[in-house]
Amino acid sequence: MSPINLAIVGVGKIVRDQHLPSIAKNSDFKLVATASRHGTVEGIESFTTIDAMLDAVPDIDAVSLCMPPQYRYEAAHKALSAGKHVFLEKPPGATLSEVADLESLAASKGVSLFASWHSRYAAAVEATKSFLASTTINKVHVIWKEDVRHWHPNQDWIWQAGGLGVFDPGINALSIVTHILPKAIFLTGATLEFPENRDAPIAADLHFKNADGVPVHGEFDWRQTGKQSWDILSDTAAGHMELAEGGSKLSINGELKFSAPEEEYPALYRRFAEIVKAGKSDVDLAPLRHVADAFMLGKRKFVEAFYD
Amino acid sequence: MSPINLAIVGVGKIVRDQHLPSIAKNSDFKLVATASRHGTVEGIESFTTIDAMLDAVPDIDAVSLCMPPQYRYEAAHKALSAGKHVFLEKPPGATLSEVADLESLAASKGVSLFASWHSRYAAAVEATKSFLASTTINKVHVIWKEDVRHWHPNQDWIWQAGGLGVFDPGINALSIVTHILPKAIFLTGATLEFPENRDAPIAADLHFKNADGVPVHGEFDWRQTGKQSWDILSDTAAGHMELAEGGSKLSINGELKFSAPEEEYPALYRRFAEIVKAGKSDVDLAPLRHVADAFMLGKRKFVEAFYD
Repeated sequence: MSPINLAIVGVGKIVRDQHLPSIAKNSDFKLVATASRHGTVEGIESFTTIDAMLDAVPDIDAVSLCMPPQYRYEAAHKALSAGKHVFLEKPPGATLSEVADLESLAASKGVSLFASWHSRYAAAVEATKSFLASTTINKVHVIWKEDVRHWHPNQDWIWQAGGLGVFDPGINALSIVTHILPKAIFLTGATLEFPENRDAPIAADLHFKNADGVPVHGEFDWRQTGKQSWDILSDTAAGHMELAEGGSKLSINGELKFSAPEEEYPALYRRFAEIVKAGKSDVDLAPLRHVADAFMLGKRKFVEAFYD
Repeated sequence: MSPINLAIVGVGKIVRDQHLPSIAKNSDFKLVATASRHGTVEGIESFTTIDAMLDAVPDIDAVSLCMPPQYRYEAAHKALSAGKHVFLEKPPGATLSEVADLESLAASKGVSLFASWHSRYAAAVEATKSFLASTTINKVHVIWKEDVRHWHPNQDWIWQAGGLGVFDPGINALSIVTHILPKAIFLTGATLEFPENRDAPIAADLHFKNADGVPVHGEFDWRQTGKQSWDILSDTAAGHMELAEGGSKLSINGELKFSAPEEEYPALYRRFAEIVKAGKSDVDLAPLRHVADAFMLGKRKFVEAFYD
């Protein structure tokens, strides 16, 4: 099979850091074009709009959409309508309804839609899923606390309404939790802290349970300086489980059981190639649905203004 | 076929006004028990909890759940787990995730789950759907403005986080709009007005479009005194359409085309009997998904405190 001719739309930091190196070492893909208002990739034909790119390069097979979620639907609709496979960066859209619409469109055009959740491909996630399936879970504690000034300096769009705020990293935690737990969880209560000068939350305290009443407590905070925390802990019948460092290290009762080098984006592109070859889509809306539920159910609390 | 032995959980105003008369005149159902903290129905065996009721009356076939949405999941889970068919008042739950979980449970137990949207059964809704399918829609305007003091006097739960506020009536509009429009819509921007002393919005301004860019503007307001408005207007190639009075009257270019007496709840119970007999469920989450999208995407604005 000849490589999948791939185009990237929205050339920013995540593309340079993750997408380009992953594509470069995957022989299933050949990068043939980019579209971005400002960014370009050396040696690759570049355009400033997706329309211009799709018109000029008809042999594009697939498109990775990496712009902020507020602008993703329109581009995805154009690409799918043109018969291209589509890879959506996380979160897959600004609303659940638009992603549901894209899923129908992909099905009707016979192309693949991939709503990617990179953290699900963190090194120790599958080992953790297997461990949890083998025992009884008493409770789960998700701690996702990082310094927004370090990770998202001056990124105004994440603070706009629809930009999701602390759920931008928090949805990574939710993408892991919804993958590793054997039973579905749902929110029973939440508090969202909004800086008084911003339209998106800087912190969230989330209480979920599953049908058996097993509690899952999530603490997301963007004001963490010093040590950063991306940990999922669980008390189980088989001991205390810790999935640390964003899904990369699994320990049971303090003993390291599994770790491996970080390989999330290479795994995402392997998965994208797999679904394109299989002629299917991979769209799991559960992480974004939990975020929407948190905004709908959550109590809003106003806190100190935030300035970059 | 012998009648479906039905129980009602949560005996309040909507049950007395709508459910009881509709059940009484439908020979497919026989009301056999109720469970409610305070309410009872004369001549019907009553309990204060669903657990006590399910234990004491094993020949219940189906349960209508009419308590506030925050308490619905647990009761629905118990009823479905006990092999009962379940009718959910609108909205079907406090979160999208819990309703998705109930849908899976109903499928695994082989019973019917009905997420009811009574406004979809308003008299002129089907005539409007047919009209819109026959023409080109240029734009849609949804005006849902009522006096909360009149319709929900001292109902504190609707003002709590998760109580949905003005989306409690607004979701009726959304249930009609998502049913009558030929193409899916999705939110592109929203403003939600919260009284400064409340955790739920008193007004919402919503901008949707469909894949063709057709704009749908929704105005929901709970501060309307005097004439109440529950109208869906559309400029179409075939003229100006007006679906007025909550879906009961269809006019084109000012000429009344269809109206009939209000029959929403009788139609809901006919539908419930139909899906129970057919062994299927009827769960369309689109209206609640749009509400969740509005909370996620919407800009929050604080307005004057509200006191009953």
